[in-house]
Amino acid sequence: MAKTIDERANHCFGCGAENPQGLKLEFEVAETDGVITATSLLTMTRMHEGPPGHIHGGIIATLLDEAMSKLNRPLNVLAMTRSLTVDYLRPSPLYVPLRLVGTHVRRDGRKVLHSAELQADDGTVLARGEGFFLVIDPEMLQSKAQLG
Amino acid sequence: MAKTIDERANHCFGCGAENPQGLKLEFEVAETDGVITATSLLTMTRMHEGPPGHIHGGIIATLLDEAMSKLNRPLNVLAMTRSLTVDYLRPSPLYVPLRLVGTHVRRDGRKVLHSAELQADDGTVLARGEGFFLVIDPEMLQSKAQLG
Repeated sequence: MAKTIDERANHCFGCGAENPQGLKLEFEVAETDGVITATSLLTMTRMHEGPPGHIHGGIIATLLDEAMSKLNRPLNVLAMTRSLTVDYLRPSPLYVPLRLVGTHVRRDGRKVLHSAELQADDGTVLARGEGFFLVIDPEMLQSKAQLG
Repeated sequence: MAKTIDERANHCFGCGAENPQGLKLEFEVAETDGVITATSLLTMTRMHEGPPGHIHGGIIATLLDEAMSKLNRPLNVLAMTRSLTVDYLRPSPLYVPLRLVGTHVRRDGRKVLHSAELQADDGTVLARGEGFFLVIDPEMLQSKAQLG
Protein backbone atom coordinates (compact mmCIF):
# COMPACT_ATOMS: atom_id res chain seq x y z
CA MET A 1 0.00 0.00 0.00
CA ALA A 2 2.24 2.81 -1.28
CA LYS A 3 1.64 6.22 0.27
CA THR A 4 3.07 9.50 -0.87
CA ILE A 5 4.82 11.11 2.08
CA ASP A 6 4.85 14.90 2.07
CA GLU A 7 8.32 15.53 3.41
CA ARG A 8 7.64 19.26 3.70
CA ALA A 9 5.08 18.81 6.48
CA ASN A 10 6.17 17.77 9.95
CA HIS A 11 3.45 15.40 11.15
CA CYS A 12 5.43 14.12 14.14
CA PHE A 13 2.91 13.25 16.86
CA GLY A 14 5.22 14.71 19.47
CA CYS A 15 6.47 17.93 17.88
CA GLY A 16 4.94 18.40 14.43
CA ALA A 17 3.32 21.79 13.86
CA GLU A 18 1.19 20.31 11.05
CA ASN A 19 -0.33 17.44 13.04
CA PRO A 20 -3.81 18.53 14.22
CA GLN A 21 -3.80 15.83 16.92
CA GLY A 22 -0.12 16.13 17.86
CA LEU A 23 1.27 17.22 21.21
CA LYS A 24 3.07 20.16 19.50
CA LEU A 25 5.86 20.08 22.05
CA GLU A 26 8.45 22.83 21.83
CA PHE A 27 11.91 22.33 23.28
CA GLU A 28 14.73 24.55 24.35
CA VAL A 29 18.00 22.78 23.68
CA ALA A 30 20.99 23.97 25.68
CA GLU A 31 24.55 22.95 26.49
CA THR A 32 25.84 23.83 29.95
CA ASP A 33 29.25 22.68 31.19
CA GLY A 34 29.30 20.06 28.41
CA VAL A 35 25.86 18.65 29.32
CA ILE A 36 23.27 18.81 26.51
CA THR A 37 19.65 19.13 27.64
CA ALA A 38 16.26 19.58 25.93
CA THR A 39 13.53 21.17 28.06
CA SER A 40 9.81 21.65 27.43
CA LEU A 41 7.06 23.12 29.61
CA LEU A 42 3.66 21.49 29.09
CA THR A 43 0.20 20.98 30.51
CA MET A 44 -1.79 17.91 29.44
CA THR A 45 -5.57 17.67 29.16
CA ARG A 46 -8.16 14.90 29.09
CA MET A 47 -7.26 14.30 25.42
CA HIS A 48 -4.35 12.30 26.80
CA GLU A 49 -5.88 10.77 29.89
CA GLY A 50 -5.04 7.33 31.23
CA PRO A 51 -6.13 6.72 34.85
CA PRO A 52 -8.86 9.24 35.76
CA GLY A 53 -7.31 12.70 36.13
CA HIS A 54 -3.85 11.55 35.10
CA ILE A 55 -1.69 11.36 31.97
CA HIS A 56 -1.76 8.09 30.02
CA GLY A 57 1.36 5.99 30.61
CA GLY A 58 1.92 5.72 26.86
CA ILE A 59 1.79 9.50 26.51
CA ILE A 60 4.34 9.80 29.32
CA ALA A 61 6.55 7.41 27.33
CA THR A 62 5.96 9.64 24.29
CA LEU A 63 7.01 12.77 26.22
CA LEU A 64 10.20 11.13 27.46
CA ASP A 65 10.99 9.71 24.00
CA GLU A 66 10.51 13.16 22.46
CA ALA A 67 12.74 14.90 24.99
CA MET A 68 15.45 12.34 24.28
CA SER A 69 15.00 12.48 20.48
CA LYS A 70 15.57 16.22 20.55
CA LEU A 71 19.10 15.61 21.82
CA ASN A 72 20.11 13.96 18.55
CA ARG A 73 20.05 17.24 16.64
CA PRO A 74 22.78 18.99 18.68
CA LEU A 75 24.81 15.76 18.30
CA ASN A 76 24.31 16.22 14.55
CA VAL A 77 22.94 12.70 14.03
CA LEU A 78 19.70 11.20 12.76
CA ALA A 79 18.87 8.40 15.19
CA MET A 80 15.89 6.18 15.93
CA THR A 81 14.82 4.82 19.30
CA ARG A 82 16.12 1.26 19.67
CA SER A 83 14.91 0.70 23.22
CA LEU A 84 13.11 2.71 25.87
CA THR A 85 12.64 2.12 29.59
CA VAL A 86 10.18 4.14 31.64
CA ASP A 87 9.78 4.19 35.41
CA TYR A 88 6.46 5.60 36.54
CA LEU A 89 7.32 6.95 39.97
CA ARG A 90 4.22 9.00 40.82
CA PRO A 91 0.86 9.62 39.12
CA SER A 92 1.26 12.50 36.62
CA PRO A 93 -1.71 14.87 36.85
CA LEU A 94 -3.64 16.51 33.99
CA TYR A 95 -4.23 20.29 33.97
CA VAL A 96 -1.04 21.05 35.91
CA PRO A 97 2.10 22.67 34.42
CA LEU A 98 4.91 20.12 34.19
CA ARG A 99 8.52 20.23 33.07
CA LEU A 100 10.05 17.70 30.68
CA VAL A 101 13.85 17.47 30.59
CA GLY A 102 15.99 15.24 28.37
CA THR A 103 19.71 14.85 29.06
CA HIS A 104 22.35 13.34 26.80
CA VAL A 105 24.33 10.68 28.68
CA ARG A 106 26.88 9.24 26.24
CA ARG A 107 27.62 8.13 22.70
CA ASP A 108 29.34 4.90 21.79
CA GLY A 109 29.73 4.67 18.01
CA ARG A 110 26.26 4.25 16.46
CA LYS A 111 24.65 3.89 19.91
CA VAL A 112 23.51 7.04 21.70
CA LEU A 113 22.20 6.95 25.29
CA HIS A 114 19.88 9.64 26.62
CA SER A 115 17.76 9.98 29.76
CA ALA A 116 14.68 12.09 30.50
CA GLU A 117 12.47 13.14 33.38
CA LEU A 118 8.93 14.42 33.71
CA GLN A 119 8.91 16.75 36.70
CA ALA A 120 6.28 18.53 38.75
CA ASP A 121 6.53 22.28 39.18
CA ASP A 122 8.52 21.84 42.43
CA GLY A 123 11.02 19.51 40.74
CA THR A 124 9.54 16.25 42.06
CA VAL A 125 10.27 13.53 39.50
CA LEU A 126 7.02 11.92 38.30
CA ALA A 127 8.52 9.64 35.65
CA ARG A 128 12.00 8.83 34.43
CA GLY A 129 13.12 7.27 31.18
CA GLU A 130 16.23 6.00 29.49
CA GLY A 131 16.58 5.45 25.77
CA PHE A 132 19.10 3.87 23.44
CA PHE A 133 19.07 5.46 20.01
CA LEU A 134 20.72 4.00 16.92
CA VAL A 135 22.32 6.42 14.46
CA ILE A 136 20.99 5.82 10.96
CA ASP A 137 21.71 6.89 7.40
CA PRO A 138 19.06 9.43 6.28
CA GLU A 139 18.90 7.83 2.82
CA MET A 140 18.04 4.45 4.34
CA LEU A 141 15.12 5.99 6.26
CA GLN A 142 13.88 7.65 3.08
CA SER A 143 13.87 4.35 1.15
CA LYS A 144 12.08 2.57 4.03
CA ALA A 145 9.50 5.35 4.25
CA GLN A 146 8.61 4.78 0.61
CA LEU A 147 7.80 1.14 1.41
CA GLY A 148 5.38 2.24 4.14
CA MET B 1 -6.47 23.58 40.31
CA ALA B 2 -9.39 21.27 41.08
CA LYS B 3 -11.08 19.64 38.10
CA THR B 4 -14.35 17.77 38.11
CA ILE B 5 -13.73 14.35 36.56
CA ASP B 6 -16.70 12.86 34.77
CA GLU B 7 -16.33 9.25 35.78
CA ARG B 8 -19.10 8.17 33.43
CA ALA B 9 -17.07 9.00 30.31
CA ASN B 10 -14.09 6.88 29.33
CA HIS B 11 -11.53 9.37 28.03
CA CYS B 12 -8.64 6.90 28.01
CA PHE B 13 -6.31 7.91 25.17
CA GLY B 14 -5.81 4.26 24.29
CA CYS B 15 -9.29 2.77 24.50
CA GLY B 16 -11.82 5.46 25.48
CA ALA B 17 -14.87 5.68 23.23
CA GLU B 18 -15.47 9.27 24.37
CA ASN B 19 -12.00 10.62 23.55
CA PRO B 20 -12.18 12.37 20.15
CA GLN B 21 -8.40 12.13 19.75
CA GLY B 22 -8.00 8.69 21.30
CA LEU B 23 -6.75 5.56 19.54
CA LYS B 24 -10.08 3.82 20.32
CA LEU B 25 -8.41 0.42 20.49
CA GLU B 26 -10.66 -2.59 20.91
CA PHE B 27 -9.33 -5.79 22.38
CA GLU B 28 -10.36 -9.40 22.38
CA VAL B 29 -9.35 -10.96 25.68
CA ALA B 30 -9.00 -14.74 25.71
CA GLU B 31 -7.62 -17.50 27.90
CA THR B 32 -6.17 -20.53 26.12
CA ASP B 33 -4.45 -23.34 28.00
CA GLY B 34 -4.11 -21.04 31.01
CA VAL B 35 -2.50 -18.22 29.00
CA ILE B 36 -4.39 -14.90 29.08
CA THR B 37 -4.01 -12.71 25.98
CA ALA B 38 -5.46 -9.41 24.74
CA THR B 39 -5.44 -8.91 20.96
CA SER B 40 -6.25 -5.86 18.84
CA LEU B 41 -6.11 -5.34 15.07
CA LEU B 42 -5.20 -1.78 14.07
CA THR B 43 -3.96 0.47 11.29
CA MET B 44 -2.26 3.74 12.19
CA THR B 45 -2.28 6.95 10.15
CA ARG B 46 -0.19 10.11 9.92
CA MET B 47 -1.97 11.38 13.05
CA HIS B 48 0.50 9.22 14.96
CA GLU B 49 3.58 9.54 12.81
CA GLY B 50 7.13 9.58 14.12
CA PRO B 51 9.82 8.94 11.50
CA PRO B 52 8.36 9.68 8.03
CA GLY B 53 5.91 6.92 7.10
CA HIS B 54 6.22 5.14 10.45
CA ILE B 55 4.46 5.02 13.82
CA HIS B 56 5.83 7.29 16.56
CA GLY B 57 7.89 5.38 19.13
CA GLY B 58 5.78 6.83 21.94
CA ILE B 59 2.60 5.63 20.26
CA ILE B 60 4.14 2.17 19.95
CA ALA B 61 4.81 2.31 23.70
CA THR B 62 1.17 3.37 24.17
CA LEU B 63 -0.07 0.41 22.11
CA LEU B 64 2.03 -2.07 24.09
CA ASP B 65 1.01 -0.47 27.42
CA GLU B 66 -2.67 -0.70 26.44
CA ALA B 67 -2.43 -4.36 25.40
CA MET B 68 -0.83 -5.14 28.75
CA SER B 69 -3.30 -3.03 30.77
CA LYS B 70 -6.17 -4.98 29.26
CA LEU B 71 -4.85 -8.13 30.96
CA ASN B 72 -5.58 -6.71 34.42
CA ARG B 73 -9.34 -7.03 34.00
CA PRO B 74 -9.41 -10.84 33.59
CA LEU B 75 -7.09 -10.99 36.61
CA ASN B 76 -9.77 -8.97 38.42
CA VAL B 77 -7.35 -6.27 39.58
CA LEU B 78 -6.98 -2.53 39.10
CA ALA B 79 -3.30 -1.94 38.41
CA MET B 80 -1.13 0.93 37.14
CA THR B 81 2.01 0.68 35.05
CA ARG B 82 5.05 0.87 37.33
CA SER B 83 7.68 0.33 34.63
CA LEU B 84 7.71 -0.31 30.92
CA THR B 85 10.46 -1.47 28.59
CA VAL B 86 10.10 -1.31 24.83
CA ASP B 87 12.39 -2.84 22.20
CA TYR B 88 11.92 -1.31 18.77
CA LEU B 89 13.01 -4.17 16.52
CA ARG B 90 11.88 -2.94 13.10
CA PRO B 91 10.29 0.28 11.77
CA SER B 92 6.48 0.03 12.20
CA PRO B 93 4.72 1.33 9.08
CA LEU B 94 1.64 3.56 8.90
CA TYR B 95 -1.35 2.56 6.72
CA VAL B 96 -0.70 -1.18 7.13
CA PRO B 97 -2.86 -3.55 9.22
CA LEU B 98 -0.95 -4.65 12.32
CA ARG B 99 -1.67 -7.00 15.20
CA LEU B 100 -1.14 -6.07 18.85
CA VAL B 101 -0.96 -8.92 21.36
CA GLY B 102 -0.56 -8.66 25.13
CA THR B 103 0.24 -11.76 27.19
CA HIS B 104 0.06 -12.16 30.95
CA VAL B 105 3.34 -13.57 32.27
CA ARG B 106 3.01 -13.87 36.06
CA ARG B 107 1.70 -12.31 39.26
CA ASP B 108 3.71 -11.96 42.44
CA GLY B 109 1.55 -10.36 45.14
CA ARG B 110 0.87 -6.75 44.16
CA LYS B 111 3.27 -6.99 41.18
CA VAL B 112 1.87 -8.16 37.86
CA LEU B 113 4.15 -8.82 34.86
CA HIS B 114 2.81 -8.69 31.31
CA SER B 115 4.46 -8.66 27.87
CA ALA B 116 3.21 -7.41 24.51
CA GLU B 117 4.15 -7.47 20.84
CA LEU B 118 3.30 -5.34 17.83
CA GLN B 119 3.31 -7.68 14.86
CA ALA B 120 3.14 -7.29 11.09
CA ASP B 121 0.46 -9.17 9.18
CA ASP B 122 2.84 -12.12 8.59
CA GLY B 123 3.67 -12.35 12.32
CA THR B 124 7.02 -10.54 12.14
CA VAL B 125 7.59 -8.82 15.49
CA LEU B 126 8.05 -5.07 14.98
CA ALA B 127 8.24 -4.08 18.66
CA ARG B 128 8.17 -5.92 21.97
CA GLY B 129 7.40 -4.63 25.42
CA GLU B 130 7.40 -5.77 29.01
CA GLY B 131 5.54 -4.06 31.81
CA PHE B 132 5.38 -4.29 35.57
CA PHE B 133 2.00 -3.25 36.93
CA LEU B 134 1.25 -2.50 40.57
CA VAL B 135 -2.14 -3.54 41.94
CA ILE B 136 -3.86 -0.57 43.58
CA ASP B 137 -6.88 0.14 45.72
CA PRO B 138 -9.61 1.77 43.57
CA GLU B 139 -10.49 4.18 46.41
CA MET B 140 -6.92 5.47 46.53
CA LEU B 141 -7.00 6.23 42.80
CA GLN B 142 -10.27 8.07 43.23
CA SER B 143 -8.90 10.32 45.97
CA LYS B 144 -5.74 11.04 43.93
CA ALA B 145 -7.83 11.86 40.84
CA GLN B 146 -9.63 14.56 42.81
CA LEU B 147 -6.31 16.24 43.52
CA GLY B 148 -5.54 16.42 39.76
